Amino acid sequence: MRVQGRSYRSVWLEGAVVRLIDQRLLPHQFAILDCPTSHDTAQAIVTMAVRGAGAIGAAAGFGMAQAALGAPQGSFASSIEQAARMIRSTRPTARDLFYAVECVEASIRQAPDLEAARRAAVQTAQRLADENAAAGEQIGLAGEPLLQDGANVMTQCNAGWLAFADWGSALAPIYQAQRRGKRPFVYVPETRPRGQGAKLTAWELGQEGVSHALIADTACGTFIQRGEVDCLLVGADRIAANGDVANKIGTYTLAVLADRHHVPFYVAAPRSTFDLSTPTGAAIVIEERGEEEVLWVWGRSADDTWQRVQISPAATRARNPAFDVTPAALVTAFITEAGLIPPRPDAIEAFVRRETALPSA
Amino acid sequence: MRVQGRSYRSVWLEGAVVRLIDQRLLPHQFAILDCPTSHDTAQAIVTMAVRGAGAIGAAAGFGMAQAALGAPQGSFASSIEQAARMIRSTRPTARDLFYAVECVEASIRQAPDLEAARRAAVQTAQRLADENAAAGEQIGLAGEPLLQDGANVMTQCNAGWLAFADWGSALAPIYQAQRRGKRPFVYVPETRPRGQGAKLTAWELGQEGVSHALIADTACGTFIQRGEVDCLLVGADRIAANGDVANKIGTYTLAVLADRHHVPFYVAAPRSTFDLSTPTGAAIVIEERGEEEVLWVWGRSADDTWQRVQISPAATRARNPAFDVTPAALVTAFITEAGLIPPRPDAIEAFVRRETALPSA
Repeated sequence: MRVQGRSYRSVWLEGAVVRLIDQRLLPHQFAILDCPTSHDTAQAIVTMAVRGAGAIGAAAGFGMAQAALGAPQGSFASSIEQAARMIRSTRPTARDLFYAVECVEASIRQAPDLEAARRAAVQTAQRLADENAAAGEQIGLAGEPLLQDGANVMTQCNAGWLAFADWGSALAPIYQAQRRGKRPFVYVPETRPRGQGAKLTAWELGQEGVSHALIADTACGTFIQRGEVDCLLVGADRIAANGDVANKIGTYTLAVLADRHHVPFYVAAPRSTFDLSTPTGAAIVIEERGEEEVLWVWGRSADDTWQRVQISPAATRARNPAFDVTPAALVTAFITEAGLIPPRPDAIEAFVRRETALPSA
Repeated sequence: MRVQGRSYRSVWLEGAVVRLIDQRLLPHQFAILDCPTSHDTAQAIVTMAVRGAGAIGAAAGFGMAQAALGAPQGSFASSIEQAARMIRSTRPTARDLFYAVECVEASIRQAPDLEAARRAAVQTAQRLADENAAAGEQIGLAGEPLLQDGANVMTQCNAGWLAFADWGSALAPIYQAQRRGKRPFVYVPETRPRGQGAKLTAWELGQEGVSHALIADTACGTFIQRGEVDCLLVGADRIAANGDVANKIGTYTLAVLADRHHVPFYVAAPRSTFDLSTPTGAAIVIEERGEEEVLWVWGRSADDTWQRVQISPAATRARNPAFDVTPAALVTAFITEAGLIPPRPDAIEAFVRRETALPSA
């Protein structure tokens, strides 16, 4: 996708350096963060300089490739193992992260020698990022026919190209519809506590010229209730075998509202987000993040500096679950790179197994 | 209620000056705003130095009393009419505001002469504020038995004593339960865009020693879904004859979530909030406020100054409905100064007519 006229991916590998758009600074500053080592890349995931299931997956793959490039001959296997452990421990919820680590590890195991292992690691990481970008494009094409001319869409958080290697999941059908002249309109919930809707989705949509309005998270219900929303389009961090969806906190509420008002609720995600080894949503680890995200809000101050303000009394404590689980029964359909998939275990399994990219160990 | 060991009401009349706790500065600064004229009092309502249905009602009554005290003999009637128009135009949604203006106007009309009219206006305004405080106390006593020991309650916005002359509506049962040693725990949604949960409810609960956690508005669904919420307790800005409830934006979403998970959803409000002349929620005017409330967030910066930060790109536009309407069917019961009232037109009418404080014209 394009930023200020130039083409970018959210994260990419240049030589042995992982480069990524620093999402902590958006929308007020556009800057590229360089991560020279796999440790730096893991830190970028922890600090959420890079976030979003697909982008995290791509960064994790590149981080593993960096580990392979930098691991000394004498302790190659243990270095790779250590890097895998470090990257897996960055964030617990997104399926794509674990999938990418597994894939690069498998490609290293299958290589005949050290140089081949390094090459294989880089190639696999690059392939995963390319597949993620291609999946985003295909998801867009699969979802675009669901949007009528002038459709009013509500999304949540940022499931756009910043959250992917490219294109995105939930926003990809909107970008495709926009390019076909359908002029969709997007309700963008702020998505507290981190405000990815306000900071990232509003920025992405603005760059692509898509009409939209920022709304408080509290206002989602009233717009759905009034019949002003034609469909909901959200992403996913992990989808269980039965179709339960872990996604950004707030998603479950939107699904319940959509169900009550008979508005279609679509979950857009590539194959790498589906996890057959997780039977239901009950088995998904939900990350509870630090309370400071709830107690403070980051933004641009009147004097144009990047600041945070405390919104509550100094003594107030907070709870901060970062994701929630939407039961499969509330999902109208999954929008995938292979088209629409119904939220049924058999259909999900058939889709995931059809051409799984995960090499057998 | 007490602040730093001293007893306060949210708004009161001293001589001809309306004094009120400036809610725009909380929780970071506790300050009293003096409004020497009815025009200043109206401005305090517009700027939300005073907010919350009951507190607005009390301020509106006192503002009318100020008008009566200050109106010149030669144009007394027209001055009162002008002040009533000005105060009515401050905010459209809260029933209590219009009720207070009506009551003071009626008392002035019934007075035999100018001095009696001035006295009647002051007495009526004072009586309305006292009745509002007494209603809050009674609502607390009526609602307290609904809370078990250690009950987990979720509220919305601030329906505490700051929103009333005293005690509050939704928080009053919690304060009564706390004083009886029941140790309730309160989930406090931030309530963007203005953050009254984070700024006011967290502050009130802290002053009263009630355990609570601030949560993002997006997190309400997951706590209800997990079974961690025993009941919801919210206030109201206006209740229609059929039991539909206009309240702070986000309330409807909580009602839908509570309904889905069979959690009781109580609306606490005094008689003055019920409006028999509004047949259903469809007839309630919903205020849409300026978009800057959504685009910026106020708080205390790290250097301890009161600042706002912009959370979205400079070009982003926003929508900002300040209230929503919850259909009566989602209300478990109203908690009133006369006890629990079922959300049925006949029960509401009987309650309101039983001893309406509105004098016949």
